[in-house]
Amino acid sequence: MRVLGIDPGLTRCGLGVVDGDVGKPLTSVGAGVVRTAATAGLGDRLVHIEAEVCRWLDLYHPDAVAVERVFSQHNVKTVMGTAQAAGVAITAAARLGIPVVLHTPSEVKAAVTGSGRADKAQVSAMVTRVLRLAESPSTPDAADALALAMCHIWRGGSQRRLMEAVAAQRGVRR
Amino acid sequence: MRVLGIDPGLTRCGLGVVDGDVGKPLTSVGAGVVRTAATAGLGDRLVHIEAEVCRWLDLYHPDAVAVERVFSQHNVKTVMGTAQAAGVAITAAARLGIPVVLHTPSEVKAAVTGSGRADKAQVSAMVTRVLRLAESPSTPDAADALALAMCHIWRGGSQRRLMEAVAAQRGVRR
Repeated sequence: MRVLGIDPGLTRCGLGVVDGDVGKPLTSVGAGVVRTAATAGLGDRLVHIEAEVCRWLDLYHPDAVAVERVFSQHNVKTVMGTAQAAGVAITAAARLGIPVVLHTPSEVKAAVTGSGRADKAQVSAMVTRVLRLAESPSTPDAADALALAMCHIWRGGSQRRLMEAVAAQRGVRR
Repeated sequence: MRVLGIDPGLTRCGLGVVDGDVGKPLTSVGAGVVRTAATAGLGDRLVHIEAEVCRWLDLYHPDAVAVERVFSQHNVKTVMGTAQAAGVAITAAARLGIPVVLHTPSEVKAAVTGSGRADKAQVSAMVTRVLRLAESPSTPDAADALALAMCHIWRGGSQRRLMEAVAAQRGVRR
């Protein structure tokens, strides 16, 4: 499966595409960052982010989109812009019928590094190693986006196995 | 001028269109609420809100869109959904090149009732009176959306007069 990970943000929005499946090697297909100027109007900034997300969806045709779940508790100053950017990205994918799943930062860190408290350097190092990149992602936002896509593939796999196990168990009971 | 006021929300998103200008009577052109089911997926809910906002923009061709500024301090549980809905609405307008302005709840209350601490009933009563409605708006969300549009017309007018006064003063100095 192919997953587009999105680390939403108004100033920097990370995008990363990963191909793969549980138990098989994962491959990075592309990663980058959409930037908007703080001096631009809010509407123009969101329109630019939307256009770039649409371009990536059109270019890579992901099977699913994984977006970082934003919490209101931290980064009070930037959290509204982050949530607005997330809303625009989620809508762009849902409009095309692509499934969108949110993952918390802790879930992503735990899936990728084994620790929900890993720092940005650890996440970037694991992303680089697992995806066998020649060098680490250009920015933390691109690394986080790739980590989101990796997390989605691995968690999706374990959830699928769980559902299959539950279904099999139900079959036994009948 | 014609203004579309939007009181963003994931469960209920208020929409209200007001025609008028400073010093002239204001007229309500339309008001309503877009609802989405809490049981629906986040993506589907945002897509529905976007479609309805686009339909209103297409139907009423507003000169400007006034959106309530969301703060992260209050309603922590619902604030992320509210910000996401706001982002989608702002983007829908900005995509068409329509100016979008945010007003805080206090600014709207102060503009419409004279008090930044007015309650919902006071806002609804003033909206009903100023717009000479036969009965008060069907929901607080529709009333808030009409109040946002009224606030935008009145504040825009005072800002315009201020700019004109500053320009005139500069002219005198030269």
